[in-house]
Amino acid sequence: MTQENKKVVLAYSGGLDTSIILKWLILQGYEVVAFLADVGQKEDLEEAKKKALSLGASKVYIEDLKEEFVKSYIYPAFSVGAVYEGRYLLGTSLARPLIAKTQIEVAQKENAAFVAHGATGKGNDQIRFELTYYALQPDIQVLAPWKMPEFLDEFKGRSDMLDFADKHHIPVTASRKKPYSEDENLLHISHEAGILEDPSTVCEEDIYSRTVSPEMAPDSSDIITLEFKKGVPVKLEMQETGKVIEGDLAIFTALNELGSKHGIGRLDMVENRYVGIKSRGVYETPGGTILKAAHQDLCGLTVDREVMRLYELFAGKISDLIYNGFWFSPEMDVLMTAATKIQETVEGDVMLKLYKGVAYPIARSSSKSLYNSDLSSMDIEGGYNQVDAGGFIRINAIRLKAHHAIKSLQ
Amino acid sequence: MTQENKKVVLAYSGGLDTSIILKWLILQGYEVVAFLADVGQKEDLEEAKKKALSLGASKVYIEDLKEEFVKSYIYPAFSVGAVYEGRYLLGTSLARPLIAKTQIEVAQKENAAFVAHGATGKGNDQIRFELTYYALQPDIQVLAPWKMPEFLDEFKGRSDMLDFADKHHIPVTASRKKPYSEDENLLHISHEAGILEDPSTVCEEDIYSRTVSPEMAPDSSDIITLEFKKGVPVKLEMQETGKVIEGDLAIFTALNELGSKHGIGRLDMVENRYVGIKSRGVYETPGGTILKAAHQDLCGLTVDREVMRLYELFAGKISDLIYNGFWFSPEMDVLMTAATKIQETVEGDVMLKLYKGVAYPIARSSSKSLYNSDLSSMDIEGGYNQVDAGGFIRINAIRLKAHHAIKSLQ
Amino acid sequence: MTQENKKVVLAYSGGLDTSIILKWLILQGYEVVAFLADVGQKEDLEEAKKKALSLGASKVYIEDLKEEFVKSYIYPAFSVGAVYEGRYLLGTSLARPLIAKTQIEVAQKENAAFVAHGATGKGNDQIRFELTYYALQPDIQVLAPWKMPEFLDEFKGRSDMLDFADKHHIPVTASRKKPYSEDENLLHISHEAGILEDPSTVCEEDIYSRTVSPEMAPDSSDIITLEFKKGVPVKLEMQETGKVIEGDLAIFTALNELGSKHGIGRLDMVENRYVGIKSRGVYETPGGTILKAAHQDLCGLTVDREVMRLYELFAGKISDLIYNGFWFSPEMDVLMTAATKIQETVEGDVMLKLYKGVAYPIARSSSKSLYNSDLSSMDIEGGYNQVDAGGFIRINAIRLKAHHAIKSLQ
Amino acid sequence: MTQENKKVVLAYSGGLDTSIILKWLILQGYEVVAFLADVGQKEDLEEAKKKALSLGASKVYIEDLKEEFVKSYIYPAFSVGAVYEGRYLLGTSLARPLIAKTQIEVAQKENAAFVAHGATGKGNDQIRFELTYYALQPDIQVLAPWKMPEFLDEFKGRSDMLDFADKHHIPVTASRKKPYSEDENLLHISHEAGILEDPSTVCEEDIYSRTVSPEMAPDSSDIITLEFKKGVPVKLEMQETGKVIEGDLAIFTALNELGSKHGIGRLDMVENRYVGIKSRGVYETPGGTILKAAHQDLCGLTVDREVMRLYELFAGKISDLIYNGFWFSPEMDVLMTAATKIQETVEGDVMLKLYKGVAYPIARSSSKSLYNSDLSSMDIEGGYNQVDAGGFIRINAIRLKAHHAIKSLQ
Repeated sequence: MTQENKKVVLAYSGGLDTSIILKWLILQGYEVVAFLADVGQKEDLEEAKKKALSLGASKVYIEDLKEEFVKSYIYPAFSVGAVYEGRYLLGTSLARPLIAKTQIEVAQKENAAFVAHGATGKGNDQIRFELTYYALQPDIQVLAPWKMPEFLDEFKGRSDMLDFADKHHIPVTASRKKPYSEDENLLHISHEAGILEDPSTVCEEDIYSRTVSPEMAPDSSDIITLEFKKGVPVKLEMQETGKVIEGDLAIFTALNELGSKHGIGRLDMVENRYVGIKSRGVYETPGGTILKAAHQDLCGLTVDREVMRLYELFAGKISDLIYNGFWFSPEMDVLMTAATKIQETVEGDVMLKLYKGVAYPIARSSSKSLYNSDLSSMDIEGGYNQVDAGGFIRINAIRLKAHHAIKSLQ
Repeated sequence: MTQENKKVVLAYSGGLDTSIILKWLILQGYEVVAFLADVGQKEDLEEAKKKALSLGASKVYIEDLKEEFVKSYIYPAFSVGAVYEGRYLLGTSLARPLIAKTQIEVAQKENAAFVAHGATGKGNDQIRFELTYYALQPDIQVLAPWKMPEFLDEFKGRSDMLDFADKHHIPVTASRKKPYSEDENLLHISHEAGILEDPSTVCEEDIYSRTVSPEMAPDSSDIITLEFKKGVPVKLEMQETGKVIEGDLAIFTALNELGSKHGIGRLDMVENRYVGIKSRGVYETPGGTILKAAHQDLCGLTVDREVMRLYELFAGKISDLIYNGFWFSPEMDVLMTAATKIQETVEGDVMLKLYKGVAYPIARSSSKSLYNSDLSSMDIEGGYNQVDAGGFIRINAIRLKAHHAIKSLQ
Repeated sequence: MTQENKKVVLAYSGGLDTSIILKWLILQGYEVVAFLADVGQKEDLEEAKKKALSLGASKVYIEDLKEEFVKSYIYPAFSVGAVYEGRYLLGTSLARPLIAKTQIEVAQKENAAFVAHGATGKGNDQIRFELTYYALQPDIQVLAPWKMPEFLDEFKGRSDMLDFADKHHIPVTASRKKPYSEDENLLHISHEAGILEDPSTVCEEDIYSRTVSPEMAPDSSDIITLEFKKGVPVKLEMQETGKVIEGDLAIFTALNELGSKHGIGRLDMVENRYVGIKSRGVYETPGGTILKAAHQDLCGLTVDREVMRLYELFAGKISDLIYNGFWFSPEMDVLMTAATKIQETVEGDVMLKLYKGVAYPIARSSSKSLYNSDLSSMDIEGGYNQVDAGGFIRINAIRLKAHHAIKSLQ
Repeated sequence: MTQENKKVVLAYSGGLDTSIILKWLILQGYEVVAFLADVGQKEDLEEAKKKALSLGASKVYIEDLKEEFVKSYIYPAFSVGAVYEGRYLLGTSLARPLIAKTQIEVAQKENAAFVAHGATGKGNDQIRFELTYYALQPDIQVLAPWKMPEFLDEFKGRSDMLDFADKHHIPVTASRKKPYSEDENLLHISHEAGILEDPSTVCEEDIYSRTVSPEMAPDSSDIITLEFKKGVPVKLEMQETGKVIEGDLAIFTALNELGSKHGIGRLDMVENRYVGIKSRGVYETPGGTILKAAHQDLCGLTVDREVMRLYELFAGKISDLIYNGFWFSPEMDVLMTAATKIQETVEGDVMLKLYKGVAYPIARSSSKSLYNSDLSSMDIEGGYNQVDAGGFIRINAIRLKAHHAIKSLQ
């Protein structure tokens, strides 16, 4: 006689929503294993663990994913130039596949037939969670309460949730709930929905939490030098102090601190969600914004022009894939293979000035520069001959002349 | 008995180089018509005219192209999102086809068989000039002294030029020649070559001439609102004073002043030239940088997601065409037709905060918003149903599951 | 007291499946208006009309869409080079939006709140129907029985359907049902599913119905000349008889007859459906295959090289949109605007030899040729100079030399 | 006292043109090493060697490149779907980089400062030769007599060449020179220029030399099965005889014979050259056409939909690069890396029917099929649920509904 597997691994945050879901799943007859991913958000995870156990979780996993997040998600994405719709640095999008992948690993270890998450049915995160689940374990069963009619019937509004919390002794944070939602990790914090929903309303200063405003930022700049190997930062040097930082996580943490201090990385934009609606997001990505500026600058020095066009093409496609939840997909594998090939020669130093909201690249050098002294010797051995340029242009003009002749006939 | 046509229309700037070329062409037996294009550079054109005549030009044309430059080159290019290699706003690239087109018009009026320019054989400008010449008048003959062996033999270095100037009474500006070259117009000023050639050398503050440094910029921001119709700015409003500016040139001039004041639009980058070499350019594009930020932001609100992907695709291709000198080409016609179609619905207001080097979009609204109250009523009539999202995701996951099965076989 | 609108317009074919759906909808309490689209399939529509009325339809519409299908769907699609995954000429995909658009027009005329179709939940047609419905009338309600649990519960297999037909006096065609499914219109007939599902099984000859096998095709060829204007055929001339055919529908019908006679247009392939699964389809597209060959050939003569690259790029994107059901979409509008611009100069004659399964272009001419006598005069006036080619190549080689230097360092 | 290096390695064919060039170079004071590449053309290379020596060549190299041509050029190109402008299978384009690379190797071995070729200044081959030379040895000096004024002055027409041949005892083939030019190798033979130049003239049957006309092809078909591993054919089986062929060159040779026999692979088209002019080419590519059909068909079975889109994108770019002479370039390296990744799962069998000019894929199977029995089990474990499709479509329609609302406002 087999017993039905009713074990579910829940992506648990410690907040009100996932606490309610935890309890509700138990009431539905599930055994709930709570999974807490540490991707650098500023939460007390041990406190959350206690809360989960107190609500009836049979077990709680806390996984420190910070190092993996930086090394295997943030750096690869930045090295291929990922940025959504020209501006958004994919802070949330990059963390979701890592969280979901680890959640599946916990489910496999626990032999759970189900995974659950607290993302809503209108957003992008549900897609990123679930596509990852399905890609890594096709037969997994997904419980997404915010898309389940029985859950939606029970929780029609916030008061239903507060009533449920009250009834089941789920602690509601004393502090007033923020009138908008947030997602936070090492890479960024996002603010959206609620009072931010109207894109014609200016976002108030007190909503920002990870960066000082440019107005409040220091009046003097910091000069730093970032060294890259294969498109990834390997050393950060502070000009004034001479301090040197190495190590994936240490470098990114330091960039975050510098960005926060100088008010770098704020973004307020309307973007296109994969589900076909537009949304307004306010983002703070301090370290990522510095990294982006430095990497882009170094590519200018070290990447061949035609390879750069491929890089740009791939970057656009990869960005959409990351945003839409296809981190684990065959097309992503192909694109990352190509993009990684491109980064082989992206190495060298970029000097940046950080000041009042901006990271300005001000100097760069590389042993792989396509613009270095070894190359200028081309001038000697059959290199650049100005006279050749005339032929180059005239041959390029042949098509245009033919087009002119045809147009003249019309 | 026909007389050989030896008339040449020279793109003349009034500077030393084109003055030498003017005289040299006359010595080669040409009749030289000097053509001065006013694209907003800060030169005394009447003074240049006198100089040309004194050097022997048979005639001088001064054409005020500022209005046309803004209306038919800058605004169309910005409305399609043109930006080269992710950063350069194409200040010089956009002016060249206009100058060359007008030069051809002068040549046609003058019945001249030749046109000439003073661009070197290693740069992009020669290409932009010459491709435009050939595209608009295929049988035109081009004199590009910097690619002519007889000219290169005579002028092997700067001292040859100074000797020639001395001998032919060509005035050399009293002020020390800047140790780098510049190109200036309404859209930007560029600084390159000379002491800027080494990309690892920080560009000195005194090289910048059109923008105050962010450090010297005002400590308080300006708030402005830009109104767009079909992707083009039609009204600028200053929040504090309530001042309203309309008219293509007036708006752009005002944006330039605002950008200059707030230190907006500086860029220092290594880029890929069409002739296959890399170069380092330092640019100041104050008004254009504000315009770019505003337009991009409004597109976020008004352009459909999939249309946005086409927009991004076209923007990349158009940027390369502009940079490489193909403004007048059949492929440009096709792309601009498509891009213009996209801009039909890009209208509305964007509010920006200008502060210390940055134009921050902080609010936006549009009657063509794909995120407005008319659309939210979709919720009522068969609109967004959260449960649908589950099906959406599961169908999208089918491919990923199949891929997983294949990988598991390996 | 308002009465609920329970009127549904059903896309009705006269076959067993949609007959069952018609009756089932009536039993569910709907008033059913049957809509029969004549897109050139070989069905007796008057007979189908009688059947619909006998089953209880309150009204029957027969719309002759053949002319519109050729003029506004087939010709535009072929003029932009639409072909899915390199081979499939989109026969079914192109008819669906036209049928669905007309169905919506009927629904609007009838003031019906619902539309219904008989497509399954695993195929592409459901998507093409429904996206068109929603795009043209966002508040329409769609009844797709093959995705409705109440219908699926009732009809679990073919015997349930036969029982239902028997009980409700729905005539089942005497002839044995084919062990695969078909879709037919002016452009093609498709055969798929059932015995064709295994892609390693050779498709039997008797499955083909619109083309003779190449083996059975005539041993002598036909030579024809197709004349195009703006990418669309306007005249067909038979070489042997001198017969001339004009008119959109007449030309396409004649091409179909020629293709059928010569065994042209068979295709057996595995393709990717939008729902993420692969399927094997066997297609016969006689006239379309001839048209495709002729149009492609003429483009070679009349389209500029770089415009051709845009054409190819757009063709790929348009093909996916058509296949996936996005004929009516903002991105399609943009792409068709660009693609139409390209076709402005695609005019002239193409001579083809039709023989044993193939349409071979053997000669072509055009007044818009980019290869005509007006252009060869370029040789005289500053046209092609072979020496220029050396400069062209050396400039193009600059990048490659730089790359070589970098690689040598490694 | 150093002696100037005047040694040149000439790509020598044995024909009249390169024989004249050989002699002319000697008269110009060069020491000429003749290089004969055997890429499968039907020439008597030993005879050509004798001729070169008799004309004064200091040394003659004959290199058998057939195996390398198939393995490292043809198969990689076909595995990534390379085809220029939708039709041309790149027969000449693929051989040139191999010939030029080997020529550079000879030059390095011989310590020659120069390489020379006999391609004209209006064609593509000059570019393919010279870009390869420069890419592999940047300081090589190239002698391309057809672009050298001193050569062009001496040889103004065919009679000058015949006079020169007569004077220098260069044997002119007894047989009438064909009134068009040809290029031949294992992959194809091309015919162009001369009487073929007018695209409105039908190519006469006697011009074709490698394929029988479809009319003359056998009345009965051959059935073959091609097995692929990683996108490359590894086994060919003849159904009737059961004969099995393995080995890169052996398989391709057998495909060529089959194609020739069945009149497969003829093509008559107008194409765009890299130098900006259009040309008409008549090609015969028997084995390649069969290989292309088989490979494309297998991709349909084994490549994921979104990966297929990347494949198509890369194929277009790679084709242009090959055609334009950029086989050895950094962008090619990146694209081939990505394309090779895609081919990892392209394995299995394709059965084809060869008949009267066509290779019809009629069945296919693969252990890596994304459509096999392992996958259908998805139906059981949370696989395809038809009801999900409704949600999928409705979510996809959200954008279209919003677009409709905006359009309604206009």
